[in-house]
Amino acid sequence: MLECSMKLTLLLLTLFTFSFSAIALASSQCSITGLPFVRNISEIHQDNFGRPGLSHMTVVGSLMHGMKEVEVWLQTFAPGSHTPIHRHSCEEVFIVLKGSGTLYLASDSNGKYPGKPEEHFVFPNITFHIPINDAHQDHNIK
Amino acid sequence: MLECSMKLTLLLLTLFTFSFSAIALASSQCSITGLPFVRNISEIHQDNFGRPGLSHMTVVGSLMHGMKEVEVWLQTFAPGSHTPIHRHSCEEVFIVLKGSGTLYLASDSNGKYPGKPEEHFVFPNITFHIPINDAHQDHNIK
Repeated sequence: MLECSMKLTLLLLTLFTFSFSAIALASSQCSITGLPFVRNISEIHQDNFGRPGLSHMTVVGSLMHGMKEVEVWLQTFAPGSHTPIHRHSCEEVFIVLKGSGTLYLASDSNGKYPGKPEEHFVFPNITFHIPINDAHQDHNIK
Repeated sequence: MLECSMKLTLLLLTLFTFSFSAIALASSQCSITGLPFVRNISEIHQDNFGRPGLSHMTVVGSLMHGMKEVEVWLQTFAPGSHTPIHRHSCEEVFIVLKGSGTLYLASDSNGKYPGKPEEHFVFPNITFHIPINDAHQDHNIK
């Protein structure tokens, strides 16, 4: 177990595959909500979705910006907080911007159960990618 | 025209859609090349592909890491250098990490010609996304 008292800030690049085809955009405003293509990350709304210790920003997303293939999130985890253990049908790439923590990755995605995960210590400048359906958890261990 | 003497460093999140389905990964090593899932960005090979002023890193990619849906690149442009004017059949998201420059974005992707592009000044903490097929160029104007 790792000692960690800093917040852990992650950039998450998550891909969603949608079945509808590309739509034409007629100006530099998004056609869905009118939000601009060019934005300042420091002005993006933060939310915790009711989960203590989480700060989440959707840097670019499907609902707000009409993205059809990829989403980018900026998330910060307070000491002791973590994601659920989860997996999903899209690839995910992480870049650690600040703080440190632990990635738990169970890469036996073919099995009925994901098995014992490997632990990876992560810190700024570390990137990691999660293959489709591989169970994983990001943890800022207190 | 904007004056700029700093290098412009961009994080590019580019999506590629492949037709083959997910492959199973049996360990925390990529099945294609044996490269690990967890890597330090500062140790990733840089290349300029013969283009003066460019520094390119593939943070995670299809050829090296077996990515099927998304690639992440880190690129730095010296003053005066730029990307070609180009467009592509995938979405692209940029995050400006250092320096400043100009994004040229022609968002009339339905036309035979892309038309006159809009100019956007970009600097650290700015993010922008390029819709599918919209012509664009990133420029570190000297």
